[in-house]
Amino acid sequence: MQTAFQTIAGDPHAGRVRILDQTLLPWQTVYRDLATLDEAAQAIRSMQVRGAPLIGVTAAFGVALALQAGDDDQTLSHALTTLRATRPTAVNLNWALDRMRNALHAGPADVRRDLAWREAQSIADEDALANGEIGRHGLALLQAVAAAHGRVRVMTHCNAGWLGTAGHGTALAPIYAAHAAGIAVEVWVSETRPRNQGLLTEWELAQAGVAHTVIADNAAGHLLMRGEVDLVIVGADRIAANGDTANKIGTYLKALAAHDCGVVFHVAAPLSTVDRKAADGAAIPIEQRSGEEVRRIAGRDAQGGLAEVSLLDPDTAVSNPAFDVTPARLIRSIITERGCVAPGQIGELAAAV
Amino acid sequence: MQTAFQTIAGDPHAGRVRILDQTLLPWQTVYRDLATLDEAAQAIRSMQVRGAPLIGVTAAFGVALALQAGDDDQTLSHALTTLRATRPTAVNLNWALDRMRNALHAGPADVRRDLAWREAQSIADEDALANGEIGRHGLALLQAVAAAHGRVRVMTHCNAGWLGTAGHGTALAPIYAAHAAGIAVEVWVSETRPRNQGLLTEWELAQAGVAHTVIADNAAGHLLMRGEVDLVIVGADRIAANGDTANKIGTYLKALAAHDCGVVFHVAAPLSTVDRKAADGAAIPIEQRSGEEVRRIAGRDAQGGLAEVSLLDPDTAVSNPAFDVTPARLIRSIITERGCVAPGQIGELAAAV
Repeated sequence: MQTAFQTIAGDPHAGRVRILDQTLLPWQTVYRDLATLDEAAQAIRSMQVRGAPLIGVTAAFGVALALQAGDDDQTLSHALTTLRATRPTAVNLNWALDRMRNALHAGPADVRRDLAWREAQSIADEDALANGEIGRHGLALLQAVAAAHGRVRVMTHCNAGWLGTAGHGTALAPIYAAHAAGIAVEVWVSETRPRNQGLLTEWELAQAGVAHTVIADNAAGHLLMRGEVDLVIVGADRIAANGDTANKIGTYLKALAAHDCGVVFHVAAPLSTVDRKAADGAAIPIEQRSGEEVRRIAGRDAQGGLAEVSLLDPDTAVSNPAFDVTPARLIRSIITERGCVAPGQIGELAAAV
Repeated sequence: MQTAFQTIAGDPHAGRVRILDQTLLPWQTVYRDLATLDEAAQAIRSMQVRGAPLIGVTAAFGVALALQAGDDDQTLSHALTTLRATRPTAVNLNWALDRMRNALHAGPADVRRDLAWREAQSIADEDALANGEIGRHGLALLQAVAAAHGRVRVMTHCNAGWLGTAGHGTALAPIYAAHAAGIAVEVWVSETRPRNQGLLTEWELAQAGVAHTVIADNAAGHLLMRGEVDLVIVGADRIAANGDTANKIGTYLKALAAHDCGVVFHVAAPLSTVDRKAADGAAIPIEQRSGEEVRRIAGRDAQGGLAEVSLLDPDTAVSNPAFDVTPARLIRSIITERGCVAPGQIGELAAAV
């Protein structure tokens, strides 16, 4: 998969990190330069960068930015604490910050800044490599369907494409791999209210020339029941040791419908998304985001400009959990950079790395 | 439940039917007068009136309007055909039109116009009475929960309130009855993309002073899993003889999640919603509506005016099924004007009426 865009690029010489601002997509393609810890933290919090792997990469670069202001232990500790608090569910954030801390504590103090930039870049590069492996392992699943039916129809949720990673994506990586291999692949893209990250997936797939159809989130069950879907692949924000998987709100509903209709449901994620300390899904913290995300919705006005409409008065009570947990029993396999495993084996596989 | 508004009112003397235009709610309260068959058909098609029972009532009044242009058999036949074709899923439409045809064929020709107005009004009045009975029977379910827990938390979907009927609603009737009985009732209102009829439910409940919280459709599974819901009640557009129920797209997902989480799921509908000729859900035609409903979304602009934003380019492929089928096995009971019955008994109950 080729793209003219890049989600994130660290520049140690200029002392800045360039990000593609995803809050403006698919309406506008705007890059922003992050120069400080606070700017990095705010980019994660506001979802200018989003997707569990990309959140981890951004946090790692955020540590490098923080150390430009001083490379003492206190600055490092403050950076780790600040970044860790940005978003609660995506465990790649903690994973990347733990890795930064370990690398920086292990290295000599006088090259700590350089080390930070290098380690952050390694995390980004390894994420891109993991994406490639996920694509390769997932491709086999799509090839099997295509061999039997001449085409493969995949349903996904939210955006787990290149926009959510430093490479080609997680859930979309097998789709891009199949498309590149000449397989006729069609994708059901669900809107993903309240933040409509499905529109990011639509934008990605349109650029890549992959056939796709957008649906309201509510339509997923009907399509599965009517036999319009061969398999479901979604990303993940945190996978518990037993394979229970937190992902974008609404994933659980798709998994239930797939299970009820006899359609296989896969999770695609790097092993950095596994939280072995969480025994099961109940231990995964679920982020509650602002009700404004439900109350308002952004799009284009009649002139093609960026606009927003309000759906609800500000005083209307709203609940806005950003993730839900899909029990392991509903998941056929987890597609990782080390291959596809049954959810029950994911803790063991992560421990072996 | 008292309301200052009324969904529909036939006026035989003026030869018109006044409707509340639901395409402008909750933003604007606008009444429109229908004077012809075509206006009535268009009001149903465009969803100025919506909700299975109200569609039936409007169609009945549409026949009365048609006969003002001539009371011959050909005019009647054309009216029945035109109205029957407006929307495919809600069977109350067919039921009301069959009833009009039977009443008009049975009556003397010289009073056919009067008969049509009277029969349409009877259908409206009986719908309101059925709503009251549904409220009474459903109340018992809510009372049982409240007796055990001191309050009852109900999840619903779409709008099956007074806006969808000629009376107090179907799914919301037990909620209004509980509120009137002094029970602490709280309602989870799902947005119901793509047309956001959840906002109609929000508007109704706010007027009635019933506590409620709006959620994105995707959030339903999470709330059910976390024990935040005592029972789910939805309306219906067509119930097959075996209890399989077509209702607004997304209902099936809620039913699956309720079942998975051990939360009871009820359907509230008058017996006019039962289609004994449909053996099961597979026989129910599912309306496909315009992709524009997904591509665009209406709300208020910053000045409080009615506005619309586009989410997708016009050439983006969209699928927009308006209903899905919830299998009878996921439904605890169907709350009708004749009491609550297991879905497997609904065909028998409808036959006995």
